[in-house]
Amino acid sequence: MADKLIYEGKAKKIFQTDKADQVLMEFKDSLTAFNALKKGEFQGKGELNCQISTLIFHWLSQNGIKHHWIATRDKNKMLVEKTEIIPLEVVVRNFMAGSLAKKLGQTEGLKLKNPIVEFYFKKDELNDPFVNDDQITALGWADQKTLDLLKAEALNINSVLQKLFQKIDLKLIDFKTEFGRNQKGAIILSDEISPDCMRLWDEKTNRKLDKDRFRQDLGEVAESYQEVFQRIEKGVRL
Amino acid sequence: MADKLIYEGKAKKIFQTDKADQVLMEFKDSLTAFNALKKGEFQGKGELNCQISTLIFHWLSQNGIKHHWIATRDKNKMLVEKTEIIPLEVVVRNFMAGSLAKKLGQTEGLKLKNPIVEFYFKKDELNDPFVNDDQITALGWADQKTLDLLKAEALNINSVLQKLFQKIDLKLIDFKTEFGRNQKGAIILSDEISPDCMRLWDEKTNRKLDKDRFRQDLGEVAESYQEVFQRIEKGVRL
Repeated sequence: MADKLIYEGKAKKIFQTDKADQVLMEFKDSLTAFNALKKGEFQGKGELNCQISTLIFHWLSQNGIKHHWIATRDKNKMLVEKTEIIPLEVVVRNFMAGSLAKKLGQTEGLKLKNPIVEFYFKKDELNDPFVNDDQITALGWADQKTLDLLKAEALNINSVLQKLFQKIDLKLIDFKTEFGRNQKGAIILSDEISPDCMRLWDEKTNRKLDKDRFRQDLGEVAESYQEVFQRIEKGVRL
Repeated sequence: MADKLIYEGKAKKIFQTDKADQVLMEFKDSLTAFNALKKGEFQGKGELNCQISTLIFHWLSQNGIKHHWIATRDKNKMLVEKTEIIPLEVVVRNFMAGSLAKKLGQTEGLKLKNPIVEFYFKKDELNDPFVNDDQITALGWADQKTLDLLKAEALNINSVLQKLFQKIDLKLIDFKTEFGRNQKGAIILSDEISPDCMRLWDEKTNRKLDKDRFRQDLGEVAESYQEVFQRIEKGVRL
């Protein structure tokens, strides 16, 4: 039986497989920014992000982080556990960058005294508003215990990712991820981890190697994603 | 020696008195909204807010809340402890209203499952951005211990205010306040409490009796402030 398309997002298609608790994620070549107001693509982006995510999921597994990844198929598809997504984007920051730097009047690249965890309510028509714990619990979107767990897990992932990136001279500026509940009720990382959803700067030159190259029209988008892939490939073997 | 004007804000003037640790706050008749984009005034507003705040400070004292108020002078001036203001606006909400309702796609008047406490970084040129605990500590604006204390104290004040307003058929929708450190290092409430900075609805009719009448051009602004004053005067005697 052919897999059935059950969801198509900005950068991914999701197919239901024969097994009720597994879905196939296909990585698309499209790139979007500013809540899809800016659109682009480059050939091979889906494949690169899929391969980068695969390497990172291996790394996370080796370091005790639970996630939805089961296997990578073809070059741009992943078999993952089906989870019920918690409607919060979880952002972790180690350095100030992007729209937050502007909003808070801070210099891009400023090292933070402590990592920041932020929640954004996933709702396209509201532009994914930034929310705090009290707002989330007061509206019944999640309880405090879940939020504490998400924060602790996001910070764990941050530490494990930094351990990898330090080996390959990359600064993890920030990243965005999502979590979901699997069939057993466990809350696990349920999102790709790629230069689409994290900022990575070269340790020495501060050269940007992520989606900001597309957002800010800096050029060499494909080359940068390729370079991130190669560095990570090296990093996981070191 | 005449008191020296040391600060003039949108709704208040602050004068240094002869005593280094005391300032005189003069309540102005002006009304502003939307970060001062909308301006107005009504005669007697300063006086009303000063008298309302005075009654509320008495009520707070009786209920164990520490604050900066020392004495009320003339009809529109207050002698208060000089404190070093913590640069955060602290907002407490019991019901959904205003710009937050819009931002989160919620109905105005929705009762919240739990009170919400929010912090806004006080910076006019940044439009007082909404921030979370991690952002505040990561940028060194306050430490977590201080934030926990501000939250606990804001919730205490909320409970004590609700106890008063319930007696006089007023729903405390939300309020904004500020805290400061006094000369002894104690963190105390350091802001007026008036219909300029809280939303009050009639319990039965949901009629608005606060600055939203000005913000939303609902008319009868002075009459509403006057009614709040009269109800509170009755409430503190009940």
